[in-house]
Amino acid sequence: MSHLTDTIIAPATPQGHSAIAVIRLSGPESIRITSEIFRGADLFQAASHTVHYGWVTDDEGRELDEVMVTVFRAPRTFTAEDCTEISCHGSPHLVQEIMTVAIKHGARPANPGEFTLRAFLNGRIDLSQAEAVADLIQSNSAKSGEIAIRQLKGSISGTLHDLRQQLVDFAALIELELDFSEEDVEFANRGRLTDLVHKILNVTEPMAKSFQWGNSIREGIPVAIIGAPNAGKSTLLNTLLNEEKALVSDIAGTTRDFIEDTINIDGIIFRFIDTAGLRETTDILEGMGIERSRQKLREADIILFVADVTHAEEEIIRDFRDLELRPGQKSAILLNKSDLVSAAISQPKAAEISSITGVATMPVTARYAHTLGPLMKFLDDHIRSHGTQEGTVITNARHYDALVNTSRALHKVLKGLSSDVPSDLVALDIREALYHLGTITGEVVTDDLLDSIFSKFCIGK
Amino acid sequence: MSHLTDTIIAPATPQGHSAIAVIRLSGPESIRITSEIFRGADLFQAASHTVHYGWVTDDEGRELDEVMVTVFRAPRTFTAEDCTEISCHGSPHLVQEIMTVAIKHGARPANPGEFTLRAFLNGRIDLSQAEAVADLIQSNSAKSGEIAIRQLKGSISGTLHDLRQQLVDFAALIELELDFSEEDVEFANRGRLTDLVHKILNVTEPMAKSFQWGNSIREGIPVAIIGAPNAGKSTLLNTLLNEEKALVSDIAGTTRDFIEDTINIDGIIFRFIDTAGLRETTDILEGMGIERSRQKLREADIILFVADVTHAEEEIIRDFRDLELRPGQKSAILLNKSDLVSAAISQPKAAEISSITGVATMPVTARYAHTLGPLMKFLDDHIRSHGTQEGTVITNARHYDALVNTSRALHKVLKGLSSDVPSDLVALDIREALYHLGTITGEVVTDDLLDSIFSKFCIGK
Repeated sequence: MSHLTDTIIAPATPQGHSAIAVIRLSGPESIRITSEIFRGADLFQAASHTVHYGWVTDDEGRELDEVMVTVFRAPRTFTAEDCTEISCHGSPHLVQEIMTVAIKHGARPANPGEFTLRAFLNGRIDLSQAEAVADLIQSNSAKSGEIAIRQLKGSISGTLHDLRQQLVDFAALIELELDFSEEDVEFANRGRLTDLVHKILNVTEPMAKSFQWGNSIREGIPVAIIGAPNAGKSTLLNTLLNEEKALVSDIAGTTRDFIEDTINIDGIIFRFIDTAGLRETTDILEGMGIERSRQKLREADIILFVADVTHAEEEIIRDFRDLELRPGQKSAILLNKSDLVSAAISQPKAAEISSITGVATMPVTARYAHTLGPLMKFLDDHIRSHGTQEGTVITNARHYDALVNTSRALHKVLKGLSSDVPSDLVALDIREALYHLGTITGEVVTDDLLDSIFSKFCIGK
Repeated sequence: MSHLTDTIIAPATPQGHSAIAVIRLSGPESIRITSEIFRGADLFQAASHTVHYGWVTDDEGRELDEVMVTVFRAPRTFTAEDCTEISCHGSPHLVQEIMTVAIKHGARPANPGEFTLRAFLNGRIDLSQAEAVADLIQSNSAKSGEIAIRQLKGSISGTLHDLRQQLVDFAALIELELDFSEEDVEFANRGRLTDLVHKILNVTEPMAKSFQWGNSIREGIPVAIIGAPNAGKSTLLNTLLNEEKALVSDIAGTTRDFIEDTINIDGIIFRFIDTAGLRETTDILEGMGIERSRQKLREADIILFVADVTHAEEEIIRDFRDLELRPGQKSAILLNKSDLVSAAISQPKAAEISSITGVATMPVTARYAHTLGPLMKFLDDHIRSHGTQEGTVITNARHYDALVNTSRALHKVLKGLSSDVPSDLVALDIREALYHLGTITGEVVTDDLLDSIFSKFCIGK
């Protein structure tokens, strides 16, 4: 870890003209370097977590900027190393000039994610917490932020770390048996090992299962708006977005490509996708649009099927069934243009379609937001139904893969234990489970893994 | 100043995904508000200029983000009020959420420039220093930053404030004479008043004169590249920029519109403007381009006249004289394509043109950067020739206007003193000079003036 002996520097705030910009240094020389380019209080004497007014000067003594310098002393810092933060006026050229002087005095420009990498290498946070930092920065809604916060606080690593530690002990005992293999001893209690494996599976399997939901939270829950041409799909999208995003006309087939936008409803991002109307067509462009609609349909978590309330009930039901939704897709049928008929007609029609299809059905008038209340409630219910999963939501594809691989290895362990497979083979399966569990928390790391995780971070983090 | 009793809040860093974002509060309630949304150390007990680790929570106790809070206690702060800074993870939605909670607890979103306005209203900085803060943030080169820094340190206000104070005393004495007008007394010594007015003019007139240079430094020094079609103007620009910015071809008249880009040479921004070749044309578009070239020519501080070295000397001199440069414009004649002839031809030709026109003339080969050394030296000399003005460079049009108006009023004072104009009229002229001087430093302010200055600031400054 020789690279931890140098001192890194990077801007910690976005580039732009603003009140202030913050430049961060971390490493053994950060206080020396900062103090050499700073005219103000003696930073060597400064207590940790104190802020000092002064000027950054270049080697000719020219004043580059009026700044505040904060001193953080190891180990109670983000990286667990000595750190300083230079808060200067927010001009990109000033940041550049101050960085340049600091680099002259021995700082090295940081690689992406290098501050967080140091926090990990110095044992201040584990790998899933480091990844939570990146997730938190990228989070774009209250809910995705909340999940990242929970992960940052150790919701994933805390649970997994303890269970893994118990499994490590069993692995050691079983491997000890191998040394005494001719004596037929059994150090590891098979019953208790089976219990532990079940206990771990009870954690890892729901966690892995939460990934689809977690990923939806992070990327936005995909909601496909599907239906026959001219049913009012684009009108619905515009009303939901409260703007004229999709081109609307009376001409069936106006929307050729799909149009997509997100809405934040109570802290959850929904990604609404307006699609080309589904119908037989000879227009090549429209045909391509319809093919893409079908693809969006397959990918969506929620399907809003928009139908014209004046159309025949059988037709609506037939068209809805033709969608051939996959299991797990949640759907609703919206009987649009219900302002054209009386409630005495639309309400019973909705009830009947719902009872035949088993799908929530509601009369709406797509262009009037006030008629969309039941739709909002439907979306809200969908979120609440996932409420119980919230304790352990996984948003990271890498964690998901590791959890799936862990579960697979653990099932092999169970099978081996129940069918008297030789101990050395069971030990191998346990090692495999330990390996995959370890990659989540960072107890098992390779340079490649670290590279692939931290290279996705932004500079300065 | 009742609006100073509330506590304002704004993000101080640009919007974007980054390591950290900083939210700033200022006002009597900033420590209370921050402490109500913060779980960590007791901020009421915190010493000034100390940093505290903890979590921002909402009213349900939900953790919004892991943050560092810095406490600054009045009066040793930017606004001279109690301030706090919340350094959170750099996600726009987190900033939004934290702002929202703080606003619930009584903070008010700040108007543009309101932090700096408070610093001014609380007497911590004067008006020209407040404007220097905005200039510094907008500065885009070492030199423009340096001028802003000097202004921030009081280079303008310090000098003017003292002189204005002396003039205030004279005004008081003269006005006292008016009360005794029947007794023909003279409290204000006319000789010393005349000396003082000269002293002030010796400051304000060079300051006003420095504006053109200061403005060039701030906006970039405009350099027009002018010449006949196909002389190599676009090639020169591309070589200077080290990229293919302008379309280059052998076809005369390739550049129709002007192309502009900036280069930072030793901390000074030069704004090079490639123009359409000057010639008689029947092409309407080209004609419009040529008209714009002539306009750019008039606006430029420096003119680079590019000519083909193989053309006749008389022709080059005639074309150059046709430019009809205005006094004060600095120019150079570049004899391009000098790789086509030997130095034995190009050097004496340059010397002769220079001696006839009195303008620096140099052989170059526009497409080879290494032949542009003499041009760089020419530009550098231009900067150095302004070196002596640096003590008092004005970059702000408002200051320029005020200085010009001050000087005009002072000349009227001088004229009045030398021609025995009644004291009450002289007093009026002195008052006028005092007024204009005061608007620079902020001793004279109106709400309109403050509005027009601070509304140009960014939010959070």
